[in-house]
Amino acid sequence: MVYELFYWPTIQGRGEFVRLALEDAGADYVDVARTRKGMEAMMKAMQDPALGFPSYAPPFLKAGEVWVGQTPAILLFLGGRLGLAPRAEEGRLRAHQLQLTIADLVAEVHDTHHPIAVSLYYEDQKKEAKRRAKEFVEQRVPKFFEYFQHVLTQPGRKGWMVGTRPSYVDLSLFQVIEGLRYAFPKAMARLEPQYQPLVELRDRVAERPNIATYLRSKRRIPFNEDGIFRHYPELNK
Amino acid sequence: MVYELFYWPTIQGRGEFVRLALEDAGADYVDVARTRKGMEAMMKAMQDPALGFPSYAPPFLKAGEVWVGQTPAILLFLGGRLGLAPRAEEGRLRAHQLQLTIADLVAEVHDTHHPIAVSLYYEDQKKEAKRRAKEFVEQRVPKFFEYFQHVLTQPGRKGWMVGTRPSYVDLSLFQVIEGLRYAFPKAMARLEPQYQPLVELRDRVAERPNIATYLRSKRRIPFNEDGIFRHYPELNK
Repeated sequence: MVYELFYWPTIQGRGEFVRLALEDAGADYVDVARTRKGMEAMMKAMQDPALGFPSYAPPFLKAGEVWVGQTPAILLFLGGRLGLAPRAEEGRLRAHQLQLTIADLVAEVHDTHHPIAVSLYYEDQKKEAKRRAKEFVEQRVPKFFEYFQHVLTQPGRKGWMVGTRPSYVDLSLFQVIEGLRYAFPKAMARLEPQYQPLVELRDRVAERPNIATYLRSKRRIPFNEDGIFRHYPELNK
Repeated sequence: MVYELFYWPTIQGRGEFVRLALEDAGADYVDVARTRKGMEAMMKAMQDPALGFPSYAPPFLKAGEVWVGQTPAILLFLGGRLGLAPRAEEGRLRAHQLQLTIADLVAEVHDTHHPIAVSLYYEDQKKEAKRRAKEFVEQRVPKFFEYFQHVLTQPGRKGWMVGTRPSYVDLSLFQVIEGLRYAFPKAMARLEPQYQPLVELRDRVAERPNIATYLRSKRRIPFNEDGIFRHYPELNK
C-alpha cells in the first residue's frame, strides 16, 4: 500500500503529525503536494464531488480507495495499520481521545498568532496576539502539560502515553514540545523543569531510528512563520 | 446498558451533541452531574488515576467498563451502538471526519466570546470579541456552511450527511444551526436563504419524534450565556 498524503508543501503544520507516523513506521508514502503538479492534484481533490469532498481542509489521506480527512481521524485510521496504536477498541479510543486533546492544544497554538481572524495578517492582530500568547503560555500550556503528565506517569504506564508501546500519541507530543520550544523558547525554559517526564518522552521519540533519520533529512521542513508554531520575538515572553 | 454522561449540568455546551444522540436513539442514560451529588462524582472521576484520568475536560461517557472523553470520540463510540452511524469502516470514518469539522466550527463559536483567554471574563475581551465575531459570521460560517452543503447535496445523498440514514452528524448540524440562530440571529437571517438544504436538514431533525419530545422536555436546557452559543447584542450584527 502506497499512502498518499495531501498537505501544504512548505510547512510542518497539522500534516506533520501524519508525516511523523508514516516516517516512524517506515511506511511507503507520497507527500503529494511536494511532487510535480502535486498542488494542482490536491486542490482538485478537495473540490471533487466524485470524492465526496474528502476534507474541509488539508491534511487528508488516500489509502487505496479510502479518503480520510482531519488529522486525528487520519491517525485513527493509520494507527492500527502502522502498528502505532493499540488494537483493542478501548486502547484505540484512548489514543484517539488523547490525540483530540492534542488537537485542541494545537488549535490554541494557532490562535496565539491569529486570535481575531485567519483571514487577517498577523500584523493586523499583533496587539491581541500578545495578550493571547501570554495567557496561553501562563495558563493553558501548564493545564495541558499537567494532564498529559498525569496520564503518562500513572501506575502501570511504561513510559508511553497509551498501552505498553509507542503510539502516534507519543510522536504527536514530541512534535508539540518541538513546536513550543521553537515558538516560545523562554516560556518552555521556565516550564520544562516541572515536566521532566514529558521532556524524557520527547527524547525517547527523537531517538527512535526512523524519526532520527527523518529529522536529519530534507523531508523534515524547518519550522517557519507560515506554520502553526511560529516564532515572533514579541510573543516569546 | 445504562450510559452515564458526565457534563456540566446547567449548559448545553459540547455535551449537548452527545445528549441529542442518546435522546434520538431512545437510549437509557443518566446525565450524571444533574443528579444528586452528581457534580461531585464528575469531579472525582476526572481526577482519578485509577480511571486513567478519563478526560481533560467534560463531556465524557461511561459505558460499562469503558470510559470515553472528547465529544467526537464519544460519538464515534456511540454511533454504531445507537444505530446513528454507518457500520462499515469507510462510512464510520466519514461521519467522524465530518463531526471533527463540526467540532472545529464549535471551537470557533466559543472563541467569538473568548478570543483572548478562557480564564478572563467576556467583559475583559469584549472589544476583541466584536472583531472576532464579525469575522466569524462574515467569513467563517459561510466557509463551513458551503462545505457542509456541498457534502449534503452531492449526487447520491438522500438528504442526510452520511450514508442513506440519519446519523449523529445530522443531529449535530441541527444543534449548530439552533445555536447560531440563538447567538447570531441577524447574521443567520442573512445567511439562511443561501443554505436552504442545510435549513431543511435542521427541520427534518427537529421533526424526529424523539428529538421533538426532548426539545419540549425539561431535559433540554435552554441556551444561556454560560454555554458555547451565547447571545450578546453587541456581537449580533
